[in-house]
Amino acid sequence: MKMFNVHSVKEARKKLTEYFSDYKLETETMDIVKAQGRILADDVLSNVNVPHFRRSTVDGYAVISKDTNGASESLPAFLNVIGEVHMGMPANKIISHDETVYVPTGGMIPDGADSVVMVEYTEKLDEDNIAINRPVYPKENMIDIGDDIKEGEKVLKTGFKLRPQDIGVLSSIGIEKVLVYKLPTIAVISTGDEIVDPSKNAKAGQIRDINTYTLSAMAEEAGCILTKKVVVEDEFQRLYDILKECLKNNDIVIISGGSSVGTKDITGKVINSIGEPGVFVHGVAIKPGKPTILAKVKDKAVFGLPGQPVSAMIVFKVFVEYLIKYIQRQDTKTEYYIEAELTSNIHSAQGKETYQMVTLEKEERQWKASPVYGKSGMITLISKAKGFIRIDADNEGIEKGEKVKVIPI
Amino acid sequence: MKMFNVHSVKEARKKLTEYFSDYKLETETMDIVKAQGRILADDVLSNVNVPHFRRSTVDGYAVISKDTNGASESLPAFLNVIGEVHMGMPANKIISHDETVYVPTGGMIPDGADSVVMVEYTEKLDEDNIAINRPVYPKENMIDIGDDIKEGEKVLKTGFKLRPQDIGVLSSIGIEKVLVYKLPTIAVISTGDEIVDPSKNAKAGQIRDINTYTLSAMAEEAGCILTKKVVVEDEFQRLYDILKECLKNNDIVIISGGSSVGTKDITGKVINSIGEPGVFVHGVAIKPGKPTILAKVKDKAVFGLPGQPVSAMIVFKVFVEYLIKYIQRQDTKTEYYIEAELTSNIHSAQGKETYQMVTLEKEERQWKASPVYGKSGMITLISKAKGFIRIDADNEGIEKGEKVKVIPI
Repeated sequence: MKMFNVHSVKEARKKLTEYFSDYKLETETMDIVKAQGRILADDVLSNVNVPHFRRSTVDGYAVISKDTNGASESLPAFLNVIGEVHMGMPANKIISHDETVYVPTGGMIPDGADSVVMVEYTEKLDEDNIAINRPVYPKENMIDIGDDIKEGEKVLKTGFKLRPQDIGVLSSIGIEKVLVYKLPTIAVISTGDEIVDPSKNAKAGQIRDINTYTLSAMAEEAGCILTKKVVVEDEFQRLYDILKECLKNNDIVIISGGSSVGTKDITGKVINSIGEPGVFVHGVAIKPGKPTILAKVKDKAVFGLPGQPVSAMIVFKVFVEYLIKYIQRQDTKTEYYIEAELTSNIHSAQGKETYQMVTLEKEERQWKASPVYGKSGMITLISKAKGFIRIDADNEGIEKGEKVKVIPI
Repeated sequence: MKMFNVHSVKEARKKLTEYFSDYKLETETMDIVKAQGRILADDVLSNVNVPHFRRSTVDGYAVISKDTNGASESLPAFLNVIGEVHMGMPANKIISHDETVYVPTGGMIPDGADSVVMVEYTEKLDEDNIAINRPVYPKENMIDIGDDIKEGEKVLKTGFKLRPQDIGVLSSIGIEKVLVYKLPTIAVISTGDEIVDPSKNAKAGQIRDINTYTLSAMAEEAGCILTKKVVVEDEFQRLYDILKECLKNNDIVIISGGSSVGTKDITGKVINSIGEPGVFVHGVAIKPGKPTILAKVKDKAVFGLPGQPVSAMIVFKVFVEYLIKYIQRQDTKTEYYIEAELTSNIHSAQGKETYQMVTLEKEERQWKASPVYGKSGMITLISKAKGFIRIDADNEGIEKGEKVKVIPI
């Protein structure tokens, strides 16, 4: 049997990106109202200037700024009101020396004018005349053509995940459809002779399925389309047949369970017997999650995850989600968290990147994070957890009272 | 005209909860595989013990712990192997003094035995005999019946938002359907004579719609069903007709634009003319977002949001999202963020809770947050922002170099 070295998380991720650097996820054109959360597969350039006319940012009077030079309450400038601009309508007057028109916020500034005086600094003398008691400088209280977005400007970059405001921005520049990556397809397989469907009565020795449900939901949360969710016995031919079928129409296949080096370790063998290049990482310096398998069969990704629910979730977060983002060329840098004070010591595993599930409780204005401990394989370890903390491989542990970053899970 | 006092954010939220404390969102029964992200409308109790049989947490030999007392490498305990437990099968042997059976990880522990010795601490002598070179204490390496979840135990509480692992936990206790709140329905109306659909050619003085697209997408992101998205002119009767129609089949209606106290301030009047109790907050000590309207018409919620895209987004986050969570009785305490160093001073508005959009850039290992500034109403203020920071009303501002919490937007 081929033996594998244990890789660090960083090395394993690097291998993952090397093996899938040329993976081409299909793209599709999508209406912007349905594109929220999707990843752009192309840069978006604006075909228009925003604004495409000079807009006032206040309710006021459009003027030639020079006409207001030196204006004050004791010595106002007097201007002749030659009209009013209506919202949504073109300004069809042209302003000459000592003339003005009223312009509402967002209204078009007429030609000739170069600024707007706020209505608060004016006094209406009669229907046709106002006094201005404060000077304005050129371009004051207005947005010039293209000040916001210039024609030809790159507004959004490929790999960007569309947020609500980006949908609004696309609308505002008249773009109704965008090119996005298709959602990656994924199949989730759990192996185990003891696992039965939740609809079944679990007999003595049997347990109801947890991993295919958790991992399928995680895959959907990470923006994948789940095509299959299945439990198979720990048996070479059954797993071979199902994996082969799943590889036909999925970008990613996850197999949980059966990846520890024991009598029933068939996952790696099945993967390697289906196609090249096969398993390229077997064993990662991560706790929990050491027996993790990263593999490629023809061009598709196959992950072997531990069977323990906590381990499976952590390995999904660290590797599967990483690849999902990578093949969509998505920016993965920002990661939000809550800072909390640790309520008891955590010892990390020597030389392993350690992940510890924690609960969160607020005491006065301070969040407190408490490790969720329990025997291996307990379900409540994942249901009680509000998040996890990550401890670097070169860190020996964290002491009670230290501040930690809790990442939501 | 009825005059309103400006409320603090806290006071305004308190009024919101008072006015909608008895709001009853409908509920529905849902298959767990579709329930991710939904809010439980009832507590979930377990009908079963987990595990429902005594499970081994290791590969090893089930023993009577007393039989291993004092065992060591130099003086092992010798036991008679009377069988093997298979995964998913009942353990059909009963262990007596000096007997043992092999049990895999997750396998059922036979009656009579009270602990498991890890296979690493045993030596196989022949087919029927092993030596044990380390003692175990009672219940070592096993999970007892109900250790994880007890029959009748409350597993998840009403108001809880279902995460992937919760779906897994529900599956593991044989619960296939849960009672959840129906998604709140919402309609988004923008007012403005100058606003045209993105499909239209915007003429001089006109701008393309941004707010209905942004706010609709935010509503969907916050877990609502969008039933209508419409732009209307700033005209009493048109807004009256559309609002009345939207109130029939929505939990929440948002109107953006037209809520500042000016010539075109018709939103408040239209709301009050449709039904009681009408507007109960008009004006909030928040920047941006001062002209915010909170209202109730019969039993439905109506929000008047400012027309500026940044203000509309902030007010949505602070009040609309707050109500969406409140009517689902959702826990709203945890809020994830990134800690960053501010790159320039921010002056907050005296006595107002101030929200400032920022960009984020990573320099070495430190995130840097820079305020996104621009003229009022500029679109790029929202597209460039990665998040916002919140400054309390009693805080005069934040200086360059200070650490701030950036909340994603």
